[in-house]
Amino acid sequence: MKINAERLKRHFESMSLIGKIGETGTCRPAHSPEEKQAFELASSWMKEAGMTTRIDNFGNLIGTLKGKKPELPVLMIGSHLDSQPYGGRFDGVAGVLSGIEAVATLTENGITPDRTIEVVSFADEEGWRFNKGLFGSKGILGKNTEEDALRKDKDGLSRLDALKEFGCDVNNFQASVYPEGSIYCYLELHIEQGPVLDIAKKPIGVVTGISGPLWLTVTLKGQAGHTGSVPMPLRKDALLGAAEIIVALNRIATQVKENPTVGTVATINVFPASRNIIAEEVAFTVDLRDIDLDRRNRYEKQLYEKIEEITKKNGLTYTIKEDTNSEPRYCADWIKSIITDNCKKLNLDAPELMSGPFHDALPLSYACDYGMIFVRCKDGISHNPLEYASDEDLVMGANVLLGTVMDILKK
Amino acid sequence: MKINAERLKRHFESMSLIGKIGETGTCRPAHSPEEKQAFELASSWMKEAGMTTRIDNFGNLIGTLKGKKPELPVLMIGSHLDSQPYGGRFDGVAGVLSGIEAVATLTENGITPDRTIEVVSFADEEGWRFNKGLFGSKGILGKNTEEDALRKDKDGLSRLDALKEFGCDVNNFQASVYPEGSIYCYLELHIEQGPVLDIAKKPIGVVTGISGPLWLTVTLKGQAGHTGSVPMPLRKDALLGAAEIIVALNRIATQVKENPTVGTVATINVFPASRNIIAEEVAFTVDLRDIDLDRRNRYEKQLYEKIEEITKKNGLTYTIKEDTNSEPRYCADWIKSIITDNCKKLNLDAPELMSGPFHDALPLSYACDYGMIFVRCKDGISHNPLEYASDEDLVMGANVLLGTVMDILKK
Repeated sequence: MKINAERLKRHFESMSLIGKIGETGTCRPAHSPEEKQAFELASSWMKEAGMTTRIDNFGNLIGTLKGKKPELPVLMIGSHLDSQPYGGRFDGVAGVLSGIEAVATLTENGITPDRTIEVVSFADEEGWRFNKGLFGSKGILGKNTEEDALRKDKDGLSRLDALKEFGCDVNNFQASVYPEGSIYCYLELHIEQGPVLDIAKKPIGVVTGISGPLWLTVTLKGQAGHTGSVPMPLRKDALLGAAEIIVALNRIATQVKENPTVGTVATINVFPASRNIIAEEVAFTVDLRDIDLDRRNRYEKQLYEKIEEITKKNGLTYTIKEDTNSEPRYCADWIKSIITDNCKKLNLDAPELMSGPFHDALPLSYACDYGMIFVRCKDGISHNPLEYASDEDLVMGANVLLGTVMDILKK
Repeated sequence: MKINAERLKRHFESMSLIGKIGETGTCRPAHSPEEKQAFELASSWMKEAGMTTRIDNFGNLIGTLKGKKPELPVLMIGSHLDSQPYGGRFDGVAGVLSGIEAVATLTENGITPDRTIEVVSFADEEGWRFNKGLFGSKGILGKNTEEDALRKDKDGLSRLDALKEFGCDVNNFQASVYPEGSIYCYLELHIEQGPVLDIAKKPIGVVTGISGPLWLTVTLKGQAGHTGSVPMPLRKDALLGAAEIIVALNRIATQVKENPTVGTVATINVFPASRNIIAEEVAFTVDLRDIDLDRRNRYEKQLYEKIEEITKKNGLTYTIKEDTNSEPRYCADWIKSIITDNCKKLNLDAPELMSGPFHDALPLSYACDYGMIFVRCKDGISHNPLEYASDEDLVMGANVLLGTVMDILKK
């Protein structure tokens, strides 16, 4: 039994037109009219696949294929249809469309499983609009805080108001929370968003887990002064301190070359930012990830020591704000085995790899066992209109997902 | 013979009221009604000191004490009365007021020199209004370009129109240009705008020269990618490259601890500046200064080599744009000696130091010999309402200037 490759291709094409930017880009903000339009299209395909559909109070689109034994915990397949502001056509979309395709294939083959299957497009996975992601997938598990709902976008519109406009009953979030034990397991197919499979020339990968990001904001305070008149030994140059810390973080993250640890500084802001005034204050973000939490904790400690040492040397003061501290979440061995077996059936040599980015699977991992299938993406480019996964790879991925779903249903 | 300390203090106080902001700040834009008011006040003091006054077509205020031999090249003393938008009470003002005070003292003592003395408040030294400074001091030497006159301020008013409003005949700049050889030498007293004298606890310094800044903009291009999914060895991280270059520049500038070389990166811009996307492009400014041009050139070469090496290692491409390349301009030894002698006469141990910032003396250095006297300023703070020089130090500086003028007149 195989999915309908032509239909899946058509679905990708149709979906890419909603919020299309440039030739190949996508901009579908969370809780936006564009996301609504994408939900309507996906909803029509869900219905064709035999599912009933609803949009819950978190702004999630949920398609349900009712099983013969609806009292059993559901098999959930998900991802998201919102995109980065300058994003691609596959991030999130691949998971939702292949989930729908898997269910459509079951239905077309006359299979009504005992267990209910749900395909979910989670709301605001990306998180850029309100500067915090995974809203829908955390929502159904009752993990959002009041603060998450009150966050505002750059136009000053709160998430609560955006959800209201979207048609959600924001006074009744609780009605959309899944009771404990009601989800049997969670599956997500996603493009890799990294170059590992592309370099290894492997179309499909089996995810071992999602490495937890540690996100810090480090602020250094020095003293402004004229770049021409303050002698070097008398300076308290906050940008020099920041540069030394960036270099130190890189050394820490790469101290054992074979390890998958990644450490990055990707934003930096300088005050007063005049070319002839020594930087008085510099704030930058730190992103440290590892599938091995002990090692990440060890490296974090090394980083703190370096910050202490470097700021002392440069006469700076500092603060460190912890924005996020997620632990690695491992995929269930039994689901990994099923995915690997299904890859073998399709003659695919699918390597195991960790996921650096988080996904809707991350919050779900606290509610049930989960598994993830990665599809190769060209040059590892994602969050960019250049993001690309071939039809062939996506079809293979969807077939691996279908096989995995069928094997899980047999359990 | 000494200057009148009480009068000088009064002059500082009166001048600080024009364009006063907050308790101790000043905002007197170039060619503005506030500068005009400052000129009128200074002009009244110049007249009391026996000078005739005029405002030339560049918007300079020039006070002239006619000598007995007016055919001799003039002894010029200058600085400026325009200020930074959020500036202090002493930057520029100190040089103009102590120049007037020195002439007043000569006149009160019945001295009419052979050589004509001129005290000048140069127009738009600061340069922020039209984003280019030293307009008046370059103007009298015929060094302005047409472009300098056409520059617009943030309200869209051109310098030409601002000068017209100020009362200048902008069709006759040439009439205000000093013929070659008509300036014998130039003296300028200025607050240090750096912490060297304050830390050394010395009220007065003898300037050795104005170090020429080399200003570069370096742009590094790497490749964006998800901070969680691109393994460290595969990255082309433009911000890491920039950090390594910032550290390298610091090492280059401080390789000989005793040298006055200063090297600074004070602005940096990252694209796309998202905390979980590896920096694709980073641009930063470099400011390298030294009183020794050979050494600065050598260090510049070392920097270029480092940029080559670091970008290669990180898989980056780069461009370097040279925004400014000024050579150091040395004070005349004979004037430095006279200044030092006059400091000694006042029991001042005045250290020699270079000037990092430029001054009106910079363009003048191409027309005649020049000397500069630095007055200590608290904590090295300048271009800020907190800028502070004590009455005592300013009086000492004015007395050193007076002595220097008298010794030069004897030559």
